[in-house]
Parts: sequence; structure tokens; C-alpha cells
Amino acid sequence: VKLGFVGGTGIEGRGLALRFAAAGAEVLIGSRSPERAVKVAAEYNAVLGAESVRGLENSAVVTSADIVFLTVPFDQAPDAVRSILSTVRPGQVLVDVTVPLSFQSGKIEYVEFPEGSSAERIASILPQEVKLVGAFKELPAHVLGDLGIVLDCDVLVCGNSSEARDKVMSAIRLIPTLRPVDAGPLSSARVIERMTLLAVLLNRRYKKKGARFRIQGI
Amino acid sequence: VKLGFVGGTGIEGRGLALRFAAAGAEVLIGSRSPERAVKVAAEYNAVLGAESVRGLENSAVVTSADIVFLTVPFDQAPDAVRSILSTVRPGQVLVDVTVPLSFQSGKIEYVEFPEGSSAERIASILPQEVKLVGAFKELPAHVLGDLGIVLDCDVLVCGNSSEARDKVMSAIRLIPTLRPVDAGPLSSARVIERMTLLAVLLNRRYKKKGARFRIQGI
Repeated sequence: VKLGFVGGTGIEGRGLALRFAAAGAEVLIGSRSPERAVKVAAEYNAVLGAESVRGLENSAVVTSADIVFLTVPFDQAPDAVRSILSTVRPGQVLVDVTVPLSFQSGKIEYVEFPEGSSAERIASILPQEVKLVGAFKELPAHVLGDLGIVLDCDVLVCGNSSEARDKVMSAIRLIPTLRPVDAGPLSSARVIERMTLLAVLLNRRYKKKGARFRIQGI
Repeated sequence: VKLGFVGGTGIEGRGLALRFAAAGAEVLIGSRSPERAVKVAAEYNAVLGAESVRGLENSAVVTSADIVFLTVPFDQAPDAVRSILSTVRPGQVLVDVTVPLSFQSGKIEYVEFPEGSSAERIASILPQEVKLVGAFKELPAHVLGDLGIVLDCDVLVCGNSSEARDKVMSAIRLIPTLRPVDAGPLSSARVIERMTLLAVLLNRRYKKKGARFRIQGI
């Protein structure tokens, strides 16, 4: 499976690209600048000790990939989506990993949108034929990026197309000790994005960095 | 420690009262009708095979207990709080376990309040001297009530008084395989109450009954 990462040179893109590449997936990372994408891909390959990641301009990533991860900060997501709108194919699966948290003078808050969540806000920009899936929202980027950490947790996957969710869950199963959990419709992002806020609060309180979730009993 | 349960004859009260009594705590369950409280306490004691639970009228429970659990449905909570307002003592710890979910024609929704959560709504009715703590919100009552189930999960505890949170967390530690997690201020209930919605959705999707949470990495 060929996985693309729009904004793949950032912190969230790095963690996901490294984990998927280490798991044997073909990984394409994108940037607005193709030179930067190539440079960062070389850095990722140095970490991996293999030539598993390629760097391309964002829209070239969208053209080539089976599943496209949108790995940009939440406030840049609408612009990033608009910039690839002419390239996405009907039926293509887009994965939104954004979490709308604001960090201001030490205070962390969930940023509320009229659409209900950052995922639903992004969906409102997309044509219906493009299937949006929310995933990896509640899993900290730096935990993903540290390949030494055994994940041993769940990833909640939501979206209005069960076919698209299944596709993303199959990809997630490549990553050892990570279990995809089918969280149903895209509106579940309202819960999942807020769980990230909780994880950040718990990290602060317990002086840890890797608070993450496991669902027992399913 | 003496634990009281206002509305302790209902489904949420049952699970908590049974777990705490089985763990060796002194348990008082309350009802508006003292006769009903006595009758249900006898039922609980039959399940436990011991005389660990006593039934009293709600306000007698409040007078005697160190920690008072408010185990009524969310839409009855404000009235239940008002009915015990003249009895609660300054510094007493009240535990809110409510979850504002509406079930209508098969659709489950989180009921939003202007205060931000059911916990904060209840806090707005209480005098400042009474410390409100939110706990057990994301743990299904029927899972608590089935003593055969090894819980093996976390309970998120939130509230604006760290002393009150500590008191509740100490009580929770009585219950085997249940770990209290300090989730900070009462506003964390906005996340925690929504996690219950997610648990219900996951139970439906996976055809299970006991979806519950564990926080990894802390």
C-alpha cells in the first residue's frame, strides 16, 4: 500500500511516516517545496536505515498515493485541503489527523467549531466523492516519532464511509502493537479530538509524555 | 470510610454500592423512600452474602457519609442536589457520576449544557464550600454491577479541589484492578462525559457491553 503525507515534513507527518515506513509501507512525504520534501525524506531514511521514504511536492503525493494523510496543524488544514482539491480523485481516502487545541499562556483549550469538530470542518470543504477518515488524533506525534516506544495502544478511526474506515484500519494494522478501533461516524471526532486535550492534561499532571488510550472490553 | 449513595437504589448506584461494599467499605444507600432503601439494601446484601449495605432516606445518608455519591440520572440531578442542599456540610465531598446522554429512536446524543458539562451544571447549583468531584462517568453501570467482571481499567477523576479528588481517589483504590486517574479540573468532565458516548457507540458497533478505558503511558 502506498501512503502519502501532505505536510509530511512536520512533526505529525514525521511520526506517522516513520512508523509506516518501518512497518514496510511505501511512504511518500509531501511539502509545498519539493526540495524540502526530498531533504526531509533523506533525514527520515537516515533514521530508518533504509531508502523507504520519498519526498515530493504535495500534489504529486496526492496523485500517487492510495491513502493520503493530511498532516498539517489544524489551523492550516482548510488551506492545505483547498490546495489539493483539484488533484484528489473521486473515491480517494483522505485521513485527517488534526486536533484543534490552542496553547495560550500555559492554558490549553479545545477550539470549538460550528461543524462540531476539526474533522467535520475539513469534511465540509471536501467534495462528497472524497472520503474523509479521522485517525491518529488522540495519539501524540512525539510518541509516534520515537520508534523505541512500543505503542501498545489503540487508534480510534472515524468516518462516514465504512469502506474508507476499513481501508485505513487495514493500513494501521501494519504497525506492530497498534490496534485500530472502529469509532463509527465522523462525528465521533468530537469525542476523539477532546481526548487529545485530556491526554495533554494528563501528561502535564503526571509529568509524562506518552499518555494514550486503550479500550478494554471490545 | 463511610460512603453514601443518594439515589443508591438505581442502576448506577447499584454497581458502585456493590463494588465498594465488596471491597470492604461501609456503604449507605439512599432513596426518597426509606422503606425502598431498606428493601434494596437487603437485595444488595443478598448478592454480597454479607450485611454490608444499609438503606436510609437520602438526607440521612448525606448526614452520615464521608463521601456522598450522587447516583441519579443526569436530568434528575439538579432536583436531587437541591433536595439535599440543606443537609450537606461545608467541606463535604460530593461525587457526580452523571452522563448527559439522550437516547431517542435509536440515536444517542451528548446533551450539551451552557455550563460545559453535566458536572459543571451541578456545581453551579452547589455552594462553594461543598466540593464536587466527577468520577465513574465513563465506566458503564452494568459493568460495575456485575461483580464477576474484572474491571482492569481506569476511572477518570476530576474536580476543582485537589484535596477532594485525592479523597475520592483513595476510596477508588479500595476496588481491586480499578485505577483512579487524576484528570484535573472539573472542566475535564467535558471530555470524560463524551467518552461515555464513545463507549456506548463502541459497544453497539462491536456487539459488546463493557467498553471502558485505560490510559497507557502514565
